[in-house]
Amino acid sequence: MRAISDNDTERETGRSFMPKFDAAGLLSAVVQHVDTGEILMLAFMDSEALAATRKTGIAHFYSRSRGKLWMKGETSGNTLQVETILVDCDQDAVILKARPAGPACHTGARSCFYRKLTGDRLERIDGED
Amino acid sequence: MRAISDNDTERETGRSFMPKFDAAGLLSAVVQHVDTGEILMLAFMDSEALAATRKTGIAHFYSRSRGKLWMKGETSGNTLQVETILVDCDQDAVILKARPAGPACHTGARSCFYRKLTGDRLERIDGED
Repeated sequence: MRAISDNDTERETGRSFMPKFDAAGLLSAVVQHVDTGEILMLAFMDSEALAATRKTGIAHFYSRSRGKLWMKGETSGNTLQVETILVDCDQDAVILKARPAGPACHTGARSCFYRKLTGDRLERIDGED
Repeated sequence: MRAISDNDTERETGRSFMPKFDAAGLLSAVVQHVDTGEILMLAFMDSEALAATRKTGIAHFYSRSRGKLWMKGETSGNTLQVETILVDCDQDAVILKARPAGPACHTGARSCFYRKLTGDRLERIDGED
């Protein structure tokens, strides 16, 4: 059983924003379309990406593969305008409710989650093939 | 620029389920209510949790704080019946479209994302205080 500190209690029930970054300095960010509720992508933020997102209103992430700050859409133009940030109980994950300027996925799909697991195989759910 | 291997191409465009676990052996799992589209929680799965979820249809995760397999609801009874698993482009994240048996959050909230960031403070969005 975990000991619950005052800090943990404030983090869960309070009004203080106390983002909890993991050992790699990251938290998880789920991007959800502000109008449709569709989940568009999942990425990670370090403190710099979180600060840049809050300052500009445009989603920034930390690229684990490239090891650096990344403004989503910086090359494609498919930016994400963040309208609301929701924070979870232990503050190690956020939802960015966003308005996408174009396809969220680098493959051109509207959402990165364009396949469903059916048995042991994946099946497209967006009409593409 | 990253070199794109045949393996990466198959992972992104193919029908093969090739889950990509990170250095810690985990992938991200977002739980979304199958009817309402509300995001209920975010957690991590190792290969064991993924296999248990697929086998039983009940969401299992890997607890980073406790360092072990965890069936959501094993003590509270608030299990998650998984109806569909969606997989993202690079197969390091999944969406579990699920039917919750009760509140998804250990705090008793319907969703773990019960606060919104407003300026530098958090505000409850679920009517609780």
